[in-house]
Amino acid sequence: MPVLSKKEITRRRFISKVGGGIVGASVSGMLLKDANAQQLVVPDPPGKKLGWAIVGLGSLSIHEILPAFAKCEKSKVVAFVSGHPDKANKLALRYGVNPKNIFNYQNYDTIKDNPEVDIIYIVLPNGMHAEYTVRGLQAGKHVLTEKPMANTPAECQQMIDASRKAGRKLMVAYRCRYEPYNREAIRITRSHELGATKVILADHGFNIGDPTQWRLKKDLAGGGSLMDIGIYSLQAARYLSGEEPNEVNAVMYNTPGDPRFKEVEETINFQLRFPSGVLANCTSSYGYAGQNHYRVVGTEGWLELDPATSYRGLRMRVYRGNVTEERELPVRDHFALEMDHMSECVMENKEPLTPGEEGLRDLKVMMAIYEAANTGKTAKL
Amino acid sequence: MPVLSKKEITRRRFISKVGGGIVGASVSGMLLKDANAQQLVVPDPPGKKLGWAIVGLGSLSIHEILPAFAKCEKSKVVAFVSGHPDKANKLALRYGVNPKNIFNYQNYDTIKDNPEVDIIYIVLPNGMHAEYTVRGLQAGKHVLTEKPMANTPAECQQMIDASRKAGRKLMVAYRCRYEPYNREAIRITRSHELGATKVILADHGFNIGDPTQWRLKKDLAGGGSLMDIGIYSLQAARYLSGEEPNEVNAVMYNTPGDPRFKEVEETINFQLRFPSGVLANCTSSYGYAGQNHYRVVGTEGWLELDPATSYRGLRMRVYRGNVTEERELPVRDHFALEMDHMSECVMENKEPLTPGEEGLRDLKVMMAIYEAANTGKTAKL
Repeated sequence: MPVLSKKEITRRRFISKVGGGIVGASVSGMLLKDANAQQLVVPDPPGKKLGWAIVGLGSLSIHEILPAFAKCEKSKVVAFVSGHPDKANKLALRYGVNPKNIFNYQNYDTIKDNPEVDIIYIVLPNGMHAEYTVRGLQAGKHVLTEKPMANTPAECQQMIDASRKAGRKLMVAYRCRYEPYNREAIRITRSHELGATKVILADHGFNIGDPTQWRLKKDLAGGGSLMDIGIYSLQAARYLSGEEPNEVNAVMYNTPGDPRFKEVEETINFQLRFPSGVLANCTSSYGYAGQNHYRVVGTEGWLELDPATSYRGLRMRVYRGNVTEERELPVRDHFALEMDHMSECVMENKEPLTPGEEGLRDLKVMMAIYEAANTGKTAKL
Repeated sequence: MPVLSKKEITRRRFISKVGGGIVGASVSGMLLKDANAQQLVVPDPPGKKLGWAIVGLGSLSIHEILPAFAKCEKSKVVAFVSGHPDKANKLALRYGVNPKNIFNYQNYDTIKDNPEVDIIYIVLPNGMHAEYTVRGLQAGKHVLTEKPMANTPAECQQMIDASRKAGRKLMVAYRCRYEPYNREAIRITRSHELGATKVILADHGFNIGDPTQWRLKKDLAGGGSLMDIGIYSLQAARYLSGEEPNEVNAVMYNTPGDPRFKEVEETINFQLRFPSGVLANCTSSYGYAGQNHYRVVGTEGWLELDPATSYRGLRMRVYRGNVTEERELPVRDHFALEMDHMSECVMENKEPLTPGEEGLRDLKVMMAIYEAANTGKTAKL
């Protein structure tokens, strides 16, 4: 990072002031007073990386998150929290994590005494997000939690409250908001390059395997396909339109006798109405062959991402003026971008693009989707 | 057509018996008795074409239907019914129609005295289908009518009743049921090549122009995008699944102040539940940039047609076993196939694949879609 000009310092000071308004928020970097006794944030030196603790060493952590640190500019992995010491030790060796920084679920709270850890990333089953997020915040750490943020809106609110009380950042891991294709889709849509947006189509799901996995247990997952994968359809409709839905219809189906769907829903398809008149038609399933796409249809054209929200390999087609073109964008690691955003928000005391409030909004809509499916009536928000 | 073997005659006799059961139905071809005094239908000689009258010489007739006769094997155009004698005379010259066979809406009923006309094709605004179909049947002619069959289920029932009373065939012009791509999609879906069908996505619409056209008048069109173009989404969900929906959700939107949508709906998106558990998520719009596609998602794969129901240029992709392949099928004229089917049904006294009852079923579901959109409640069928 180059030496800051006076103008940039002023802008940064402005950002640090408006970026959340959290009393006592921890700010990375040195604090100074300027000539008028105004607080100045002196940024961290170039190359500084914040220390991350990964909580939960399942498939996502092993296959995506840990490898992503190699691509991070502002984030490094320094600690693990796991119930499997063998696995944690092997991964510590591979990723250069000090074995002293391996915690388990019993001594998790002692992470507060570890100054190497700035940020905790919760990669646990959904039903454990609230507890481990709140405990992490209480330990004085900033927290990034996987989506869905929690099982219920009430849990989300507890997490937001804990973040405010602790003066620590809370972010939800809405990966797609940080990668180039979805950002470009948002830009195109909101700039009205396709004319006014009329309809958003979004479909996410796959044919889920092992009936004994946590994703199919109500207490651990909070729900079925909607909580895990349909949330991508919902998020897409929300971030593409830039609006909050005010009406929801839904229809749900579980294959009778299928051992996978004893506790949670298989398929739940939903319709959203947004205040401007944009309508979304979305599907979510644990029972169909992989779907991962969305299409934004405007008055003058449409754009499609297929796949839209996979970890890699996204493809965009844009139709306008009777021409369909494929648009290629730089390939970036989604997790690295997401984690570096969180580190940057901590370093610069900025509010994350996807704070706890964003996770709470999704949970509220998802509850309305379940309500609509269960009552056969339009649910209002 | 070659000389028929005894076995084929027996099969044909069987078909003529089971193909409709309409008392007094007109049968093209000679009737004979066999040795057991059973009635035999002796088929028409090879190359015989039935005579068609086209009612309504608008864009569809001029650009699609009349040129299609060149591709027909069993159908020829022999008469016009039009309110524009100049246009009718010019087209008669071009298509070799005897000027004596040009009727207008006043003398339409005298078509009963014209033995050259076997079949009448109603290509009028929706609100006129019922009247001109019933009058055509009463004139002793078989009738093919454009979709939607009529403005209301009650009108459809009157048309079906008139067909039965007159002993004449009644068919609805569901063109896609007769062309190779949609037939192959139906075959793949119903044969469970993709596993059990879970979700059907279907989207049809376009940004409609001239606010003064009949499609935007409630009395002539019966409704808005749903009646005209959304019906393709509905049809696709029904013919792909091979089932009748029993529950419907819907959401509707009209852009405030848009002069096109004073009388009829702009966008109406709907969800269908079928008895086997198949769910459909469909859109229909007069306000968005051209959409013409569907996707069938099964447990093991999916297929997509895009465009799915255009007059030409259909494309099919099929995904199975981690491979997506494009399938090319013979290019055929949809209207020629559809008209020849009708001619064949008349020649062989068979029930059309898409009889009046099929049009009535769509109208009943469309009324349920409007009901669901208007009440905000799941409509049951």
